[in-house]
Amino acid sequence: MTQDLTLALDAMGGDKAPGAVLKGVDIASKRYPDLKFLLFGDERRLKPILKRYGRLAERCEVRHTDEAVGAGDKPTQALRRGQATSMRLAIDAVRNGEAGGVLSAGNTGALMAMSMYVLKTVPGIDRPAIAGFFPSMRGESVMLDLGANVDCTADNLVQFAVMGAAFARVVLGLQRPTVGLLNVGTEAMKGHGTVKTAAEILRNTELPFEFTGFVEGNDFSPGTVDVFVTDGFTGNVALKTAEGTAKFYAWNLRAAFKRSALSRLGYLLARPTLATLRDRLDPRSYNGALFVGVNGVVIKSHGGADARGFANAIGVGVDMLRGRFNELLVEDLNAFAKQQMPRPKAAAS
Amino acid sequence: MTQDLTLALDAMGGDKAPGAVLKGVDIASKRYPDLKFLLFGDERRLKPILKRYGRLAERCEVRHTDEAVGAGDKPTQALRRGQATSMRLAIDAVRNGEAGGVLSAGNTGALMAMSMYVLKTVPGIDRPAIAGFFPSMRGESVMLDLGANVDCTADNLVQFAVMGAAFARVVLGLQRPTVGLLNVGTEAMKGHGTVKTAAEILRNTELPFEFTGFVEGNDFSPGTVDVFVTDGFTGNVALKTAEGTAKFYAWNLRAAFKRSALSRLGYLLARPTLATLRDRLDPRSYNGALFVGVNGVVIKSHGGADARGFANAIGVGVDMLRGRFNELLVEDLNAFAKQQMPRPKAAAS
Repeated sequence: MTQDLTLALDAMGGDKAPGAVLKGVDIASKRYPDLKFLLFGDERRLKPILKRYGRLAERCEVRHTDEAVGAGDKPTQALRRGQATSMRLAIDAVRNGEAGGVLSAGNTGALMAMSMYVLKTVPGIDRPAIAGFFPSMRGESVMLDLGANVDCTADNLVQFAVMGAAFARVVLGLQRPTVGLLNVGTEAMKGHGTVKTAAEILRNTELPFEFTGFVEGNDFSPGTVDVFVTDGFTGNVALKTAEGTAKFYAWNLRAAFKRSALSRLGYLLARPTLATLRDRLDPRSYNGALFVGVNGVVIKSHGGADARGFANAIGVGVDMLRGRFNELLVEDLNAFAKQQMPRPKAAAS
Repeated sequence: MTQDLTLALDAMGGDKAPGAVLKGVDIASKRYPDLKFLLFGDERRLKPILKRYGRLAERCEVRHTDEAVGAGDKPTQALRRGQATSMRLAIDAVRNGEAGGVLSAGNTGALMAMSMYVLKTVPGIDRPAIAGFFPSMRGESVMLDLGANVDCTADNLVQFAVMGAAFARVVLGLQRPTVGLLNVGTEAMKGHGTVKTAAEILRNTELPFEFTGFVEGNDFSPGTVDVFVTDGFTGNVALKTAEGTAKFYAWNLRAAFKRSALSRLGYLLARPTLATLRDRLDPRSYNGALFVGVNGVVIKSHGGADARGFANAIGVGVDMLRGRFNELLVEDLNAFAKQQMPRPKAAAS
């Protein structure tokens, strides 16, 4: 096994584990023929399921443990007493060099706490963040922080911008992504001190991305920028508001179609294309959030993700490993640190 | 003219003023036969339009001014130099007792600054907020702050809860609305210090509303609570994210319907019920935000609102006046203040 093409999986994390996890592994194994898996969990449950997937077992190594982090466990508690859990052992495999990255659909707070403790943060990053995807009229955008840091300083936001841009370069394949800072208006005078200071720093930063200034909540859908930067409080609320609104729209649409015989017929005729729409808006297609800023590739799948969603999260992990995300990030952070040194000439410009 | 049934209108505010404003006044005049209007603006433009609406002119008094606040004017600038603007004169009419409330579709920051300066804030309120509506599966909910205060303390959030509940009692006709505090999770340990402290105070408050604890971004659409309380930064982002997502869904739906001949036919059959859906989700139906916490009824219409949207905003003003919103609020704030006094017995409970 080469390190780069092996993912360590917390096979016991998520609402539908381990069944959906293994089914997702099977889907992903067909998409990525050179990918191997280290599966951490209860072998009495994992091995019988694995048998159903034929030759998949050849690419999986099961590492047994009886313990798993509970969905309701506090991060501090998981950190102190969870050394033998499937989540912790999967993270340890990355530190030991047995796997290139780790993936879990389990307890987000515990995964973040354990990753930071075991893998440490990347030098130059004060706090890791959670980066994920947002569908838009232009394709998809990246957004961070989705909820790891409810209180953020201007420096945190600037670091999120650097990490989000590196993430977009790797997963969206962009040379020079555009980056916007979420605010309540686009004019420079808008917003609180934290976003104003962060914008000021970003305006004076030269890195492989273009900072376009402030963006607003209604910029997600047109995909005005490739990377939306915000604190974890606002980001979490925005993401969940968008998910809720999409459900609300679908709910209203179903009700509208049922309202008359003609509209029911219309629905039957339009059904195949409406199914395409549903696929396009399916949150499973956008599953797989990355913990950016930890020393290693740590992917968080949605807890309720099914096999398809889990397979997509694995795909994000593969992109990160192949794109050498962390090396790219370290380069950018070094370049950024140099620009923050006192530059006598800068004062004159 | 009795004070209670007269609204002062900034006839020059908004992208489509004064045409859409007067058309909106005409629509509202039919809904509210006892309502009268003081129209502030350029009489050379207002009077010819007014003539088109026949007997409407009998219920309108035009007060001429050449000046208007610009959409891009800074609030401080509008405050200092805008004494003769249509917006300012309309607000003055409330202070003078000539009108019960004021409505403008113009510059939000200027309207807030002028309202606070001229009308002052209600005792017990540190900062007024902007309260508006959110459509939900249960009907509609109230949300505040929509963007007046980007930095909020726990006390601000508590005051927003008291004001939002009074607003919901008046506009939604609820005896005892439910109130939730927006956060990144529903567990008590979630979120930053500000929301935790605000929740603690609200849990120990006895007023005509039920504080149900924390709510999340995906609670807007099911309408989990009647009143969503948050700071103006998060509220503004959430509102605009929801608007953007609804547009995105509609955009995808149109594209899906165009994809095949069958789905185009399906669209034609379902069109009447889809039109109902569009109406149901039409932001114009939810137009009309209230500046809660100023001494007087101040309604802000969306700048891009058309006549129908403007008429709905007038309806919100009528509800406020008929429901004696500010009297209700003062009662609640007095009751709240008493509960915040040192209560020796409380420590024992």
